[in-house]
Amino acid sequence: MIEKITGEVLKEIKPSSEEKIILCELANDILKKIDKTSKEFGIDAFGMLVGSVARDTWTAGDKDIDIFIMLPPSLLKEELEHYGLLIAKKISSEYEERYAEHPYIHAKFGNYDVDIVPCFNVKDASKIKSAVDRTPFHNSYIKEHILGLEDEVLLLKQFMRGSGVYGSELKLKGFSGYLCELLILRFGSFLGVIESASEWKYGKLIDLKKKGVYSESPPLIFIDPVDPKRNVAAAVSIDTFSKFIDASRSFLKNPDKDYFFTKSVSPISKKELKKRISQRGTEVVSIVFDVPDIVDDILYPQLFKAEKSIVYMIDRHGFKVFGSDVCAKENKVIIFLEMEIFRLPKIKKHVGPPVTSKNRAIDFIDKHKGSPLYIEDGKYVSEIERKYTDVFDLLENKLIFCALGKNLNTYVKNGYKLLRNEEVLKEGFEAFIGTYFHLKHF
Amino acid sequence: MIEKITGEVLKEIKPSSEEKIILCELANDILKKIDKTSKEFGIDAFGMLVGSVARDTWTAGDKDIDIFIMLPPSLLKEELEHYGLLIAKKISSEYEERYAEHPYIHAKFGNYDVDIVPCFNVKDASKIKSAVDRTPFHNSYIKEHILGLEDEVLLLKQFMRGSGVYGSELKLKGFSGYLCELLILRFGSFLGVIESASEWKYGKLIDLKKKGVYSESPPLIFIDPVDPKRNVAAAVSIDTFSKFIDASRSFLKNPDKDYFFTKSVSPISKKELKKRISQRGTEVVSIVFDVPDIVDDILYPQLFKAEKSIVYMIDRHGFKVFGSDVCAKENKVIIFLEMEIFRLPKIKKHVGPPVTSKNRAIDFIDKHKGSPLYIEDGKYVSEIERKYTDVFDLLENKLIFCALGKNLNTYVKNGYKLLRNEEVLKEGFEAFIGTYFHLKHF
Repeated sequence: MIEKITGEVLKEIKPSSEEKIILCELANDILKKIDKTSKEFGIDAFGMLVGSVARDTWTAGDKDIDIFIMLPPSLLKEELEHYGLLIAKKISSEYEERYAEHPYIHAKFGNYDVDIVPCFNVKDASKIKSAVDRTPFHNSYIKEHILGLEDEVLLLKQFMRGSGVYGSELKLKGFSGYLCELLILRFGSFLGVIESASEWKYGKLIDLKKKGVYSESPPLIFIDPVDPKRNVAAAVSIDTFSKFIDASRSFLKNPDKDYFFTKSVSPISKKELKKRISQRGTEVVSIVFDVPDIVDDILYPQLFKAEKSIVYMIDRHGFKVFGSDVCAKENKVIIFLEMEIFRLPKIKKHVGPPVTSKNRAIDFIDKHKGSPLYIEDGKYVSEIERKYTDVFDLLENKLIFCALGKNLNTYVKNGYKLLRNEEVLKEGFEAFIGTYFHLKHF
Repeated sequence: MIEKITGEVLKEIKPSSEEKIILCELANDILKKIDKTSKEFGIDAFGMLVGSVARDTWTAGDKDIDIFIMLPPSLLKEELEHYGLLIAKKISSEYEERYAEHPYIHAKFGNYDVDIVPCFNVKDASKIKSAVDRTPFHNSYIKEHILGLEDEVLLLKQFMRGSGVYGSELKLKGFSGYLCELLILRFGSFLGVIESASEWKYGKLIDLKKKGVYSESPPLIFIDPVDPKRNVAAAVSIDTFSKFIDASRSFLKNPDKDYFFTKSVSPISKKELKKRISQRGTEVVSIVFDVPDIVDDILYPQLFKAEKSIVYMIDRHGFKVFGSDVCAKENKVIIFLEMEIFRLPKIKKHVGPPVTSKNRAIDFIDKHKGSPLYIEDGKYVSEIERKYTDVFDLLENKLIFCALGKNLNTYVKNGYKLLRNEEVLKEGFEAFIGTYFHLKHF
């Protein structure tokens, strides 16, 4: 049963020979150009194909190629960046400069996206000068060990895509390609990983070489075989970890091809959103504002922080958030809040000191002169006016005082929209909201 | 200033000579009848005037007289009750039998209410057979010591009446007359008590003879001078204790005659109740049902228990009670609830086990098949339908399952009314609700 399913999946996701040949020729061509250009500049550098293409663990239709320019470790950081970019730009015709730990070049070669990344060609993984220098060692390690297991990696990656846990970017906090490959090495097969995962506990530790020294307590620890101080699964959050366990169990119980493919969600219509809200009896509040062109790995951690801070602020004022989510799209972000308690009375109780604490009692009475004051359980209680009786008013007045993070705070101060229920549908987040209601909350 | 005020108050509350003469003549007449009737029945018994009338600490207009029939301690309990009631009934023309620890007679003599209570004439307070036997000892103790301080007692009682803390009945949980007298003995004057009270802490201990052995921790402990194992202030609740402290402090700061007299509260009108509710943004729910003719000291503890149990049930279902109170009047009771959160969405989250607890996880998923299910913070969360989205519906369906106490449960099962907002005004609790809003919540 499972074999039949994985066979069918493989047929769909394994690149054809033609696809492989075209991609390999393109990659080799770029490598040669890097070598040649390096020589022209008189630099002792060469190109190296890394990532899933190098390891034959890429999926049909994948148009991403990762190529590293290996530069001498004797260079200064500035020299590395200077020469690396010089070479990369020389060989590319259509490109843009991007920035991770170092700057790199994102280039277009036909319909392929090629990242060309300069790095130090250190002799040993323990000598790396920045995180990118580790990649060639990962590459070598996997290439040495993965032979014959490539299809298993493909299946695992695809299964993780289907469960929404594939990708270590900070937006998703899931499993990286390298982590998938290592899991296959550890458990021998796709099914081996799935069967193991269905029994995982929080703090699961995997150490191929048994020499890891990892001391934190994330949900999953996979000691990097090329660097025993590093956890390859550091990015995996408790929720992607849990989702993977859950998906593994479900798949083993009821194997189905559907697990390998993301369910497509249709954007929500105005009529449907209204119906959902009325059926659920909740109230939707959306905060929408513009952001400049920044990469997701910088934007999303700030968005998550802002979401948390806003939910905390709302709850602290006596309201209650039922569910929330964030999304960024085309330089616009949404903080989406579904409210459980969105309206409150105009009064609230302010509990003061015990009556027997004379000095504090006198201060409290002085401070609340004019407000109703009575004694409950031996303490003074004053009834005071609630400043915000609707969560909408609260956000209108207090949003900019939330700890939104330095950058978001500036963007929000430039202006934001506060939208109630279906008003949000003018803003272009119909698919995101559809996902919230269809996939997450049904 | 204070002397001027207390002087004026005394003028109003001190019985006139005429009033005293009329009352003393009536009391003496009853005592003589008791002695005579006892002889006729061949019983070695006599009457004793006790209470505030006996100690000259009663207030003008007070029409209550307490008279004890002192019977030989050699009698059996049944004999005491038999002969006691026989004598009491013989001398009364208009009376009813009432019941505390023993049965007693509540009689009308003109426009005076006279309680005639049989008790054992024990030699020593340590030999008492029931709580009522202690009263003659209290009486003797106060009569021996109070001479010259009667006016101070009158002032203190009246001040406590004005602050709503006078009376040890279970409805009020305040200060008894005997406790007022003892406080005057301890602190020498009305002002002495008030000044001391303004500094009291919870657990305040007063022991005239310094031989008390009281080990519990109520707000106030006044060791009974006639029985060192007894706390005269056992009935005083944390709230009446606190209210008295608060009133004492306020009076000392701004002395005013008003402190001695209860503010009269006018019944709330429909228009005003509607206005209050709308101004406060709350919702009022009243539970009204009939009760048989039972004494307040039995009814009120049950009502308080029921109130607590209902508030707990409501809060446990996600709603929130802002304030509540109970009242009994003319064989009808009301449990009055002012709601802070009275409506909730149709859905709620049901948080399940961590994903990693495999067996519990499988059970949870099985149980919630068909409901939306997702993972939050590593735990399964199911969205389930909230059975009651309005506190009114909740009470309609769940009230009879609350721990209302054995008696109230029966009465509620016989039928109750659930009234929303101003609907309650048909039930005759206008003054009670007026007090809730005017005095307590302004």
